[in-house]
Amino acid sequence: MMQDIYAELISIGDEILYGQTLDTNSHFISAELDKLGIRVKRKVTVADNREAMMRAFKEAESNADLIIITGGLGPTKDDLTKPLLAEYFDCGMRLHEDILEDLKQRFAKRGRELNELNKGQAELPEKCQPIENKYGTAPGMWFEKDGKVFISMPGVPKEMKYMMEDTIIPKFKEIYKAPVLIHKMVKTVGIQESILAERLEDWENNLPQEIKLAYLPGLNQVKLRLTASGVDEQHLQNLIHKEVEKLYELIGKYIYGTDDTNLPAKIGELLKEKALTIACAESCTGGYIAHLFTSNAGSSEYYRGGINPYHNDLKINILGVKKETIEQHGAVSKETVIEMAERVRELFGADIGISTSGIAGPGGATKEKPVGTTWVALADGMNTQTKLYHFQFDRQSNIEITSNSLLNLVRQTLSSK
Amino acid sequence: MMQDIYAELISIGDEILYGQTLDTNSHFISAELDKLGIRVKRKVTVADNREAMMRAFKEAESNADLIIITGGLGPTKDDLTKPLLAEYFDCGMRLHEDILEDLKQRFAKRGRELNELNKGQAELPEKCQPIENKYGTAPGMWFEKDGKVFISMPGVPKEMKYMMEDTIIPKFKEIYKAPVLIHKMVKTVGIQESILAERLEDWENNLPQEIKLAYLPGLNQVKLRLTASGVDEQHLQNLIHKEVEKLYELIGKYIYGTDDTNLPAKIGELLKEKALTIACAESCTGGYIAHLFTSNAGSSEYYRGGINPYHNDLKINILGVKKETIEQHGAVSKETVIEMAERVRELFGADIGISTSGIAGPGGATKEKPVGTTWVALADGMNTQTKLYHFQFDRQSNIEITSNSLLNLVRQTLSSK
Repeated sequence: MMQDIYAELISIGDEILYGQTLDTNSHFISAELDKLGIRVKRKVTVADNREAMMRAFKEAESNADLIIITGGLGPTKDDLTKPLLAEYFDCGMRLHEDILEDLKQRFAKRGRELNELNKGQAELPEKCQPIENKYGTAPGMWFEKDGKVFISMPGVPKEMKYMMEDTIIPKFKEIYKAPVLIHKMVKTVGIQESILAERLEDWENNLPQEIKLAYLPGLNQVKLRLTASGVDEQHLQNLIHKEVEKLYELIGKYIYGTDDTNLPAKIGELLKEKALTIACAESCTGGYIAHLFTSNAGSSEYYRGGINPYHNDLKINILGVKKETIEQHGAVSKETVIEMAERVRELFGADIGISTSGIAGPGGATKEKPVGTTWVALADGMNTQTKLYHFQFDRQSNIEITSNSLLNLVRQTLSSK
Repeated sequence: MMQDIYAELISIGDEILYGQTLDTNSHFISAELDKLGIRVKRKVTVADNREAMMRAFKEAESNADLIIITGGLGPTKDDLTKPLLAEYFDCGMRLHEDILEDLKQRFAKRGRELNELNKGQAELPEKCQPIENKYGTAPGMWFEKDGKVFISMPGVPKEMKYMMEDTIIPKFKEIYKAPVLIHKMVKTVGIQESILAERLEDWENNLPQEIKLAYLPGLNQVKLRLTASGVDEQHLQNLIHKEVEKLYELIGKYIYGTDDTNLPAKIGELLKEKALTIACAESCTGGYIAHLFTSNAGSSEYYRGGINPYHNDLKINILGVKKETIEQHGAVSKETVIEMAERVRELFGADIGISTSGIAGPGGATKEKPVGTTWVALADGMNTQTKLYHFQFDRQSNIEITSNSLLNLVRQTLSSK
């Protein structure tokens, strides 16, 4: 019988409380712990302030087996984590000669000398084990007390990630044996949460008790998370597998994939299967669809390239949209997106051409075409489909939902081919 | 004399603790409260779980004057916030006919009928004031108890934002008079945190006691946050102004702007001042620089457009890079980025052309050109500058730091013109 391991995460930093920095660290750490079956019970963010930090350490110790702290380890004065941990564990500081030597060598390689602030990074509380930091100057710290583990890492995401992957996760695998926790994320596009919930009501009511369901809504996408917990991994895997099969029967046409898939990656798979390629001509989405495709490793296999001719003369002169089309119908029109999609397909030598043109806002609106008016098109050499949307979000969300909606049209078209 | 107002934020959702959803809501709310001078003392994230939620409500009530809760208000079974708040405030539920009528009309407009799940959204705990939700079906809730305020909003970002902007912030302005808190963010690019800290050591030691400093490091960017607190706003503004002037004297060439500016927006300003335009040819950054420019409203004034010729034949046939250049030097080379920048400048009719070509990873590396090898160029019609970088991050961070580094080169070039 395995024992439940509970963790609490503490993020330190006024910048998070003031809303100036988005805390992505605790998101990453949560996902990693989850893979190990360690349950994050609570996350707390507190200020760079003695009283708040000491209270957070104490509460976490009484709540959890494993306490992971990020932030407050920089070389500058506003960083309090190291002295406060020494105080919390009631110990002095010790200079680690090997860490100092390593810092000196790393600085020498770049032709620089260590300054006093950086030298101080080699001093750590006596009761901790240092954790190597390949990408920065502040080592991490590992403390143990009455069977509980305290870990402190810098707030710089790449330094924290390196420590997690290189030292901490391997060590957790040795010392913890957690109960089995299995997640399956089923990703849908093009259907609203409440309609989905209605269609799934009977299924949801009959879920086995080992499985918990959550709806995670986004911009034109809803993710369904199934979580199974218990002791027998194979049994749980079978249960999850059966329920996911039922979901495909009930709402299969809205499901584009599971787990880490994203919509452009799914389109990439479909394109590779059919040995097809794609290219995009983006006006209002301004390079965002290109960015979504090229964020996936290996996208050069199916993504030919893209153009964003932001000005009308470029739509005409480079892409080859007819001058009369834009003069007669405007850049945000069915006629223009049709030509954009057909021309980018030919010009980039792709099998499929897609295009967007709309008023992302806040400027650029007219009486007939308010902010959010958006045309998209898809040309495959035989037919050219178009869609008109009236979105009502801010600039950033209009760009994002336009991209998701057009990508869903690509997915549907490829799935039916 | 004004009174300090302290807030605590509670985010509810297993998906946040499991690392599946990034909590951007509390980030937004923090920034808004900060503008009002309300201090966020702590943020807590707890599971969709009765015990954890009730404990969080109680702790927050004892800690803060204002408690803001997001999440757990969906129409589905896993959403517990509404029944638990009714329990916490010890009251029954009441159907709001006006809300129900409004929901019916909104559904009718889209040719749909209300289902049972959505009807339930019009039932709220008796002791709350409903908060209108223009973009979704779950109203927000406002409770008051012994001078403390509890607010509950949905976890969907655009619904939460609408409630904050339309109802909650205006109401806060009426009821709270908080002490003055002024922030100034000074944004630098191209200098490391520890070098910056060394150069600023004397200045930092002599800061007036009303001002607190924090270093916020990112990818090739470090932000300096100055926070002044007190009672006399004009006095604090003067203090901050004086210190920012000193910063410009000490490290001015690394500062690209303050507060909400971003690097492409700053470049936009410089371009507008000089009546110049820009266009980009992106290979490894795959549309990301275009996306950064076009995310700023009004970018069409200076941004002509972009192309990402992901395949070599497109670099040759559309953009006009010489076939021999790519054959002799490869796509990731000084020679290729020079031609890309010069050709995109001509083809797009821009004053400045910029280009990127690199190995973003994880695939595509060779012995001579490991992952992270990146060339960028900037052509202004007179000279073409190039830079070679060796980044060591993952794909996403390589794309981001390449973009930031090239944008900094553009900034420096424009600033010296």
